[in-house]
Amino acid sequence: MTLNVYLSGEIHTDWRDQIMKGAAELDVAFDCPVTDHAASDDCGVAILGAEDNKYWHDHKGAMVNAIRTRKGIADADVVVVRFGDQYKQWNAAFDAGYAAALGKSLIILHGPDHAHALKEVDAAALAVAQEPAQVVEILRYVLTGALPQ
Amino acid sequence: MTLNVYLSGEIHTDWRDQIMKGAAELDVAFDCPVTDHAASDDCGVAILGAEDNKYWHDHKGAMVNAIRTRKGIADADVVVVRFGDQYKQWNAAFDAGYAAALGKSLIILHGPDHAHALKEVDAAALAVAQEPAQVVEILRYVLTGALPQ
Amino acid sequence: MTLNVYLSGEIHTDWRDQIMKGAAELDVAFDCPVTDHAASDDCGVAILGAEDNKYWHDHKGAMVNAIRTRKGIADADVVVVRFGDQYKQWNAAFDAGYAAALGKSLIILHGPDHAHALKEVDAAALAVAQEPAQVVEILRYVLTGALPQ
Amino acid sequence: MTLNVYLSGEIHTDWRDQIMKGAAELDVAFDCPVTDHAASDDCGVAILGAEDNKYWHDHKGAMVNAIRTRKGIADADVVVVRFGDQYKQWNAAFDAGYAAALGKSLIILHGPDHAHALKEVDAAALAVAQEPAQVVEILRYVLTGALPQ
Amino acid sequence: MTLNVYLSGEIHTDWRDQIMKGAAELDVAFDCPVTDHAASDDCGVAILGAEDNKYWHDHKGAMVNAIRTRKGIADADVVVVRFGDQYKQWNAAFDAGYAAALGKSLIILHGPDHAHALKEVDAAALAVAQEPAQVVEILRYVLTGALPQ
Amino acid sequence: MTLNVYLSGEIHTDWRDQIMKGAAELDVAFDCPVTDHAASDDCGVAILGAEDNKYWHDHKGAMVNAIRTRKGIADADVVVVRFGDQYKQWNAAFDAGYAAALGKSLIILHGPDHAHALKEVDAAALAVAQEPAQVVEILRYVLTGALPQ
Amino acid sequence: MTLNVYLSGEIHTDWRDQIMKGAAELDVAFDCPVTDHAASDDCGVAILGAEDNKYWHDHKGAMVNAIRTRKGIADADVVVVRFGDQYKQWNAAFDAGYAAALGKSLIILHGPDHAHALKEVDAAALAVAQEPAQVVEILRYVLTGALPQ
Amino acid sequence: MTLNVYLSGEIHTDWRDQIMKGAAELDVAFDCPVTDHAASDDCGVAILGAEDNKYWHDHKGAMVNAIRTRKGIADADVVVVRFGDQYKQWNAAFDAGYAAALGKSLIILHGPDHAHALKEVDAAALAVAQEPAQVVEILRYVLTGALPQ
Repeated sequence: MTLNVYLSGEIHTDWRDQIMKGAAELDVAFDCPVTDHAASDDCGVAILGAEDNKYWHDHKGAMVNAIRTRKGIADADVVVVRFGDQYKQWNAAFDAGYAAALGKSLIILHGPDHAHALKEVDAAALAVAQEPAQVVEILRYVLTGALPQ
Repeated sequence: MTLNVYLSGEIHTDWRDQIMKGAAELDVAFDCPVTDHAASDDCGVAILGAEDNKYWHDHKGAMVNAIRTRKGIADADVVVVRFGDQYKQWNAAFDAGYAAALGKSLIILHGPDHAHALKEVDAAALAVAQEPAQVVEILRYVLTGALPQ
Repeated sequence: MTLNVYLSGEIHTDWRDQIMKGAAELDVAFDCPVTDHAASDDCGVAILGAEDNKYWHDHKGAMVNAIRTRKGIADADVVVVRFGDQYKQWNAAFDAGYAAALGKSLIILHGPDHAHALKEVDAAALAVAQEPAQVVEILRYVLTGALPQ
Repeated sequence: MTLNVYLSGEIHTDWRDQIMKGAAELDVAFDCPVTDHAASDDCGVAILGAEDNKYWHDHKGAMVNAIRTRKGIADADVVVVRFGDQYKQWNAAFDAGYAAALGKSLIILHGPDHAHALKEVDAAALAVAQEPAQVVEILRYVLTGALPQ
Repeated sequence: MTLNVYLSGEIHTDWRDQIMKGAAELDVAFDCPVTDHAASDDCGVAILGAEDNKYWHDHKGAMVNAIRTRKGIADADVVVVRFGDQYKQWNAAFDAGYAAALGKSLIILHGPDHAHALKEVDAAALAVAQEPAQVVEILRYVLTGALPQ
Repeated sequence: MTLNVYLSGEIHTDWRDQIMKGAAELDVAFDCPVTDHAASDDCGVAILGAEDNKYWHDHKGAMVNAIRTRKGIADADVVVVRFGDQYKQWNAAFDAGYAAALGKSLIILHGPDHAHALKEVDAAALAVAQEPAQVVEILRYVLTGALPQ
Repeated sequence: MTLNVYLSGEIHTDWRDQIMKGAAELDVAFDCPVTDHAASDDCGVAILGAEDNKYWHDHKGAMVNAIRTRKGIADADVVVVRFGDQYKQWNAAFDAGYAAALGKSLIILHGPDHAHALKEVDAAALAVAQEPAQVVEILRYVLTGALPQ
Repeated sequence: MTLNVYLSGEIHTDWRDQIMKGAAELDVAFDCPVTDHAASDDCGVAILGAEDNKYWHDHKGAMVNAIRTRKGIADADVVVVRFGDQYKQWNAAFDAGYAAALGKSLIILHGPDHAHALKEVDAAALAVAQEPAQVVEILRYVLTGALPQ
């Protein structure tokens, strides 16, 4: 059993690296959005032509990024969504809702301060973790049955 | 043609009333979540028994509210999601993602300040409005073909 | 919003009546399996002809009952499954799994003694109640936003 | 043709080993839940943190196990569900219902004593067997057309 | 509960009338194909223009009839398919397969002589009856729980 | 049986009126796009604000119109798409493809000159007509079994 | 592009071999039912135990065969169904209906004598051929664009 | 992540080659219709027999081509549809609608002159490009995160 895991959400810390390194020996295929913030913001206009209006500048980029996000979520067995300490991160919550509606197994990753604000998102999840290492342990258990030592 | 419209998101202003009044003469059936904040937070423990742990207190409430939310979105032709000026409103973005994955027609309602933060959500929408009156005009046009005077 | 509710499971107590009476003033359409135990067991052979072999006797009845059960679950927004104190009640757990896979909102109803044995079933539910009155309160809250007094 | 087979249900006898050994030369990819009872019960709290309340202890474990179960059933062509002589085994019946609703080919495995109690579950199956060796023969026939000697 | 029932298959005896009369007092909405053989054969060319080639003559008719058949099966909860004593009746078996793939509850109606030839069709059914009156009894039982006197 | 029929495509002749009048006594519920060309082009900017760029002007209108189109096609049993003598009418062909992928019964309406260019579209249809009156005859036959006199 | 092709229907001539040999150099993965008539009839009782009643004897076999048939059709891009000169072949028509409802590309293979009786089945097909060699040519064209010499 | 990309539409310029060469080093699997115009027009009659009537000549070809088109679109993550300067190209718009209804990520490729006529098609797309090189850049960005230099 290969597990396809999509890592959505916060892009300002190295949580994806932690999970991918921690799960390196497991049969997991990871996918994630483009995490280069500037490239992600500008991809639409850089490829398809400049826009005078900032709204359409953003829009073209969001649409191009959606090609990758939709594919990543559609192919995933498990979608991990991390909420960081800063920013609105509405795209993270959107991805969580999108994945939930498709019946994907959701793991939500956030600190305890966000618990109340994320209660509807957490309610759609099969696991709510605080640390990337816990996500690794879940993946290990799901694939091998081994619990943390 | 009756249009089923679900009004998701911000609960601290009267935007739902504005839309429902504005569309009173149209063939629209509106639905929305429970918008009494205290009831919404406590419904789980009030009905199913108290929890010592705040996390599970919230969780039980979020699950009971999900019965209504899922039904409302599943039955909807159009899902309107409003983002207000305050709070994280992750449940609103979650609903938008959930509705998008089900192929519902999305209308997103927010002020210009949130445009960049909501670009991925807006990119999944068929209309992005700033005022409740614009949502009414969209519903009127969709149902009758009449444009605003 | 009319809520379609299917009442599955235990047939030896009056829990369905309690819920239907308690919810009499709510906009709920209830459905349930045939709860006459003898009729339910014998419907296949009574209509389609006797069988020498008890296995096929049972099988013909289970198939005819499935016509009603599938329709009831398919049409439901909410599926309530009650586990009583006695018997294996595998058909109740089967209905819960069937409803879960279709994305129905599940409410599981059972006494505390069964909590461990039902943990996988409860994990698929949006509410786990112990008393029929609690199911009524959930339906009332979902439809009206009113909490118990 | 590779057949994906998920082996659900009873975990106290070696029936899975019997089937996997018997089908060793066939083009079958087997999957199953974590069958270490203690690990399965405690995985939630071991990874995600202890709970004072036994209900939530169980719940967290059931949710983590569901990540594996859902993936296993979703990927399966055939779901075999065995009911043993003891315990309630509601999770087995739940899995059978879940698999049936997804249109998976079901094989139910149980002794004759359980025939009446399992009649609704059996009625959803394409085969009802009493011995693991019969499941092997079904897989061999389905893949090769060869009947038992 | 209103049951939508589609009556497919043999058009040379009055079995549909028998069922509709027998079920007159039940909450059933019946639908069926056009049963006027000549109209059914010629509808394509009569409306859309003559064809020199008999194959296309037949084809145009079959396509127009499919508009009704698809709607009838798609809307049905229960599809009854009768096989008479004569003719190939491949359209009946086609409808049965079509309905089975959509997860409709199938009732197959035929005399004992056809049992072996119809075994794959019967295997997809929830009931196999020999007489129209038995179909009426099934509908009565499914809707009311009453067995034949 | 009420038939839901969506009338897509050409907006410069009165073909919709001919069909609706011709089918006035039949149990058909018709729906169609907004056929006021100017309103249809400008609805986006009229409601949601002007755009300097003609592309986004058009885009906003097309998105608002899509709310109606998607609802109309999703609710339809039969989608009639007419191709007129002029213009590219790519939206008509798009609607035909969209409806085909959803499994709707398609009726294509066009003059003989377009037959070769529309062969892929016609190939997805259950009927290809040249005159609105033929569409009426199809609806009459489908609903009543009556052929043209 | 690998094309998955399921070969359903008549089992008394070597048409499957003709197609498989003719398409040997193409990127096609073929699947088919068990074509050993005796094994196919008896597989149920041979594996799962004898039945006194011929009906249940047949039924058990048909159910076991359905495990293979459903998998084969579900995995197929193209389903070829051949109708021979003899027998009722209702299982062939059933498979055609089943495949049609799943949106598979159907190729029907039969002699001209059956054209009228198969008109509804042919109407669901993308190609109607008379000879196995034509099916090979279709597969070659679909995969390579080459027409017969 | 391998991206499956289907290239639909205009067949008179080398845009497919440009995209395939430009993306040669990327993990993309391309598919497309048969682009030999004469073969595409005549495949039906060349394989399945001549037709006197040009309509059925075209029809048989369109149906055979649909086997390839449906497979290509069904397997695709991204569907690119190009509209050239000439011809009606209704099959291109049909493919775009078909792909949109299946939830595929659409990229539409056309010159600025067609913008108004294609506004409904463009409104269903995640990207609208003018040059094949832009499509290559989108694929590169989606797969690697790299923007054009």
